[in-house]
Amino acid sequence: MASTPLITLTTDFGLTGPYVAAMKGALLSVCPDARIVDLCHALPAQDLRAASFFLRSALPYFPEGTIHVVVVDPGVGTERALLCIRAAGQTVLAPDNGCWTGWLRVTGATPRVVRLAEPSFWRASVSSTFHGRDILAPVAGHLALGEDPEELGPVATQWHELDWPKPTRAGSTWRGEVIFVDDFGNLLTNLPSNLLGPGSAVRILGQAAAAVVGTYGQAEPGTLVALGSSSGELEIAVVQGHAARQLGAGVGTVVEVVTS
Amino acid sequence: MASTPLITLTTDFGLTGPYVAAMKGALLSVCPDARIVDLCHALPAQDLRAASFFLRSALPYFPEGTIHVVVVDPGVGTERALLCIRAAGQTVLAPDNGCWTGWLRVTGATPRVVRLAEPSFWRASVSSTFHGRDILAPVAGHLALGEDPEELGPVATQWHELDWPKPTRAGSTWRGEVIFVDDFGNLLTNLPSNLLGPGSAVRILGQAAAAVVGTYGQAEPGTLVALGSSSGELEIAVVQGHAARQLGAGVGTVVEVVTS
Amino acid sequence: MASTPLITLTTDFGLTGPYVAAMKGALLSVCPDARIVDLCHALPAQDLRAASFFLRSALPYFPEGTIHVVVVDPGVGTERALLCIRAAGQTVLAPDNGCWTGWLRVTGATPRVVRLAEPSFWRASVSSTFHGRDILAPVAGHLALGEDPEELGPVATQWHELDWPKPTRAGSTWRGEVIFVDDFGNLLTNLPSNLLGPGSAVRILGQAAAAVVGTYGQAEPGTLVALGSSSGELEIAVVQGHAARQLGAGVGTVVEVVTS
Repeated sequence: MASTPLITLTTDFGLTGPYVAAMKGALLSVCPDARIVDLCHALPAQDLRAASFFLRSALPYFPEGTIHVVVVDPGVGTERALLCIRAAGQTVLAPDNGCWTGWLRVTGATPRVVRLAEPSFWRASVSSTFHGRDILAPVAGHLALGEDPEELGPVATQWHELDWPKPTRAGSTWRGEVIFVDDFGNLLTNLPSNLLGPGSAVRILGQAAAAVVGTYGQAEPGTLVALGSSSGELEIAVVQGHAARQLGAGVGTVVEVVTS
Repeated sequence: MASTPLITLTTDFGLTGPYVAAMKGALLSVCPDARIVDLCHALPAQDLRAASFFLRSALPYFPEGTIHVVVVDPGVGTERALLCIRAAGQTVLAPDNGCWTGWLRVTGATPRVVRLAEPSFWRASVSSTFHGRDILAPVAGHLALGEDPEELGPVATQWHELDWPKPTRAGSTWRGEVIFVDDFGNLLTNLPSNLLGPGSAVRILGQAAAAVVGTYGQAEPGTLVALGSSSGELEIAVVQGHAARQLGAGVGTVVEVVTS
Repeated sequence: MASTPLITLTTDFGLTGPYVAAMKGALLSVCPDARIVDLCHALPAQDLRAASFFLRSALPYFPEGTIHVVVVDPGVGTERALLCIRAAGQTVLAPDNGCWTGWLRVTGATPRVVRLAEPSFWRASVSSTFHGRDILAPVAGHLALGEDPEELGPVATQWHELDWPKPTRAGSTWRGEVIFVDDFGNLLTNLPSNLLGPGSAVRILGQAAAAVVGTYGQAEPGTLVALGSSSGELEIAVVQGHAARQLGAGVGTVVEVVTS
């Protein structure tokens, strides 16, 4: 455990507006000693799949006891609940929209989930459009001060599971799709990297990957390659290039692997 | 009060160049224990109104004793002064260009203002183009170390007030304008949200908001709505869309409200 | 020295993907008390010259004892080494691709360099494509915990030096080029600012700078000016404008100075 509480922030608020700042202020007003770690504030707006991919790629690396505040919240102000989820040594505060369930599956853990219902841990005045600032941030501050999560509200046994595309198989051909495009333009898919073997053929948008490689530097600049990503997915990249732009590919683009 | 000093940074330096980094280094060189909290580094370049909107939406949420360094500084190196402003439990270090006076009005406080004039708290060598690094950051470090603000220079009783557009009224029609576009494309206006009532009609660029709602999720995706923002302004949004792009609206676009 | 270890991060990972977050988690898992300071995550992808310019403009401002993790790493997973460099009171962890040698020249120091070769300081499982998360971040964590850098691997006496364009001179004319474009659109060059004098004439893309100034505010908005940058380079700017866009200039654009 860290000597001062560690709280990460992941949002789709963007980089220009005052929302990230206001949320940090609300958190620090409750727990001035909190150490805030920015994970991302540029998730695609209201994109729950992108949030899910992000969380399952990032959260497993954090030390036990970390508190994660996640605000991708298209349902803010409606009846959707806010949850406190504990699993695998981490505590996640997030809307009940499924953004965290992909991470949960990766951990294989059984979570302890509480629905936030106790306003004494919230800001005195709660807006209809900014529960990140008015509920999640102060609750994170109270947890960092040592509050028992069970005090936040009643235990929840049901929650929203994110619908997520699954790969399909026909004979030796697997068919999946791009689920995330990173800032280099590399294409992360929902196919597992262990489909890749010496004889695998990978196709996207009518083009065949020239090679299955172990890392980018194993092929010439400009080559379309397939490889295992650093999180275990099948990834498609253009060496020292931008695969998404060069192929015209994006989230949802179909990817096929013929295994040998 | 936090156990280690809390210093926030708000700039228009952008995300690629070395200026934010150099400023952090200069600050930490004076006060290695400072906890730096990034508020924003992507304010529109040299846009004092955007800075003003940002500060008044963010600063009220911070705990007493926070030091805020603000560098939106088109006049760097000219005769414009640099100020240390104390009000409402906060300390703001900023150029004398009015970027902070909107926040001050929100607090309703009477500030104590000092003009930075004592070079012993600055870097030994001060450039003509980067007072954020050479003056404001080291001064913030000294304040975090416990320096008395009164030692920074003489008390100032006059400062630049930012010219700011005010709404006008003709009968039951209020006329204001967009003053900030957030990263979701939502349009924040200079009209107060309490103009919105069940019978209010809101118009922008010849289009009428379909509904006055309490939160985004109360109308169908794609609907143009008016609502109260999380900071109390009248806000115009497209549900799960990007109002600025879809309307072709931006800062300065006229917004009218007919109250009933 | 700071009471808790200070570790900065500089990458080209971008602002949307999970890589920065995963690296922070890996670092904090080794040293939960580390204070992480983001310097930049939006360096142009795999651009070693941009990284070099960034580091030599930013690192000199940091306090003694700071650890800097730098991940601009087109050669990840190939035979390129990873290095721990100590010079001028700073510790830099970076790939052996020359991104740090420009900074070293600025310090004038003789570095102590060690090649990372001791896997006991790495993550148990090392991917082929993400050594920032799997090697550099945990090594930074161990250094922050007090590990002796000499334990990380053997001393290195050779390393890659970055090829960097040098200005040329013909009579009283110096010819250099733009080496960095900052977020304001200002053009930083490889020419030293001390070439600028009252009689200097500065040309770029067939246009002459209207004036040599001390700071932006000394000429009218819209004027093309030359000045000394805050890091000592000759800089070309449009007052309150965006020189790169207005001139169509970028990295590599030729700049000439005729001294008098």
